[in-house]
Amino acid sequence: MEYSREPFTGNFHFGPFLLKKSVEVFYVSKLSYGIVNLKPIVPGHVLVIPKRVVKRFKELDLNEVYDLWHSAQLIGGRLEQYYHVQAMTYCVQDGEAAGQTVPHVHVHVIPRRAGDFERNDQVYEMLEASSSYLHGSRKWEIDTEERRVRTEEEMEEETKLLRTLFM
Amino acid sequence: MEYSREPFTGNFHFGPFLLKKSVEVFYVSKLSYGIVNLKPIVPGHVLVIPKRVVKRFKELDLNEVYDLWHSAQLIGGRLEQYYHVQAMTYCVQDGEAAGQTVPHVHVHVIPRRAGDFERNDQVYEMLEASSSYLHGSRKWEIDTEERRVRTEEEMEEETKLLRTLFM
Repeated sequence: MEYSREPFTGNFHFGPFLLKKSVEVFYVSKLSYGIVNLKPIVPGHVLVIPKRVVKRFKELDLNEVYDLWHSAQLIGGRLEQYYHVQAMTYCVQDGEAAGQTVPHVHVHVIPRRAGDFERNDQVYEMLEASSSYLHGSRKWEIDTEERRVRTEEEMEEETKLLRTLFM
Repeated sequence: MEYSREPFTGNFHFGPFLLKKSVEVFYVSKLSYGIVNLKPIVPGHVLVIPKRVVKRFKELDLNEVYDLWHSAQLIGGRLEQYYHVQAMTYCVQDGEAAGQTVPHVHVHVIPRRAGDFERNDQVYEMLEASSSYLHGSRKWEIDTEERRVRTEEEMEEETKLLRTLFM
């Protein structure tokens, strides 16, 4: 099976949420897509998601695993170049006890810089704080925490920019 | 390309280290293998590694990515059953700034339980503490830290056990 870029047609879901394509989706392959984050922990922190809504990594079939991780590799490579970083974190929180908050498999792809967090592993603390927000709502509103939730306009701007990396 | 189980023949490396096959390697596919940990952060914390020694995820070719993640999925599924857990963490620390300490791509596959760490994200703190050990040596000795490095006999016992999950 080949994985390939695809047009931005159809409806894309993230668990129970219908994604706003022009605002959130920057990459589409045959079986996966890439979306920007409501509350990224660093610039370029994106998610790669199988189109089919299943909760756990083990539920993906062979073609989906193939497409998901080739997409993650491609996206990670382009982000690393674009953001001029020398490292990436790839992480799947697979099930609630692993910190999963949206019941739809997703790979966190996170550009990393030396010293980007006070402790190197703090990236995951931020990741969980970030994810836990989604427990509540996905409304576009200012958060009371240190990092604020982005506006729809900010997300759309990033989505436009990131789409240019995959043309 | 099909991924398939393979015999335990040849030499397997983890970065600069030559692995002790009977002690450490519990799974072999065409392009990847699964190894137990010198200092696992929870029971069943293992690594999945491409046979070819390259540092970064982006250096893997399509077949290697395919084989690596199908192997990780297969191994994760079996470990989840065997350890009776409901969640898994899959994580690649891809480059030093992302916490990579051995210059050879590896996927951490970690069985997770509710409450297994005081804070859910503490798993990553442990992960980094665990990895940092490898900076020094891979000698089989008692560590001065809270978690001790396992003996070669303990690792061999786990390797034998895990091999039975893939027969």
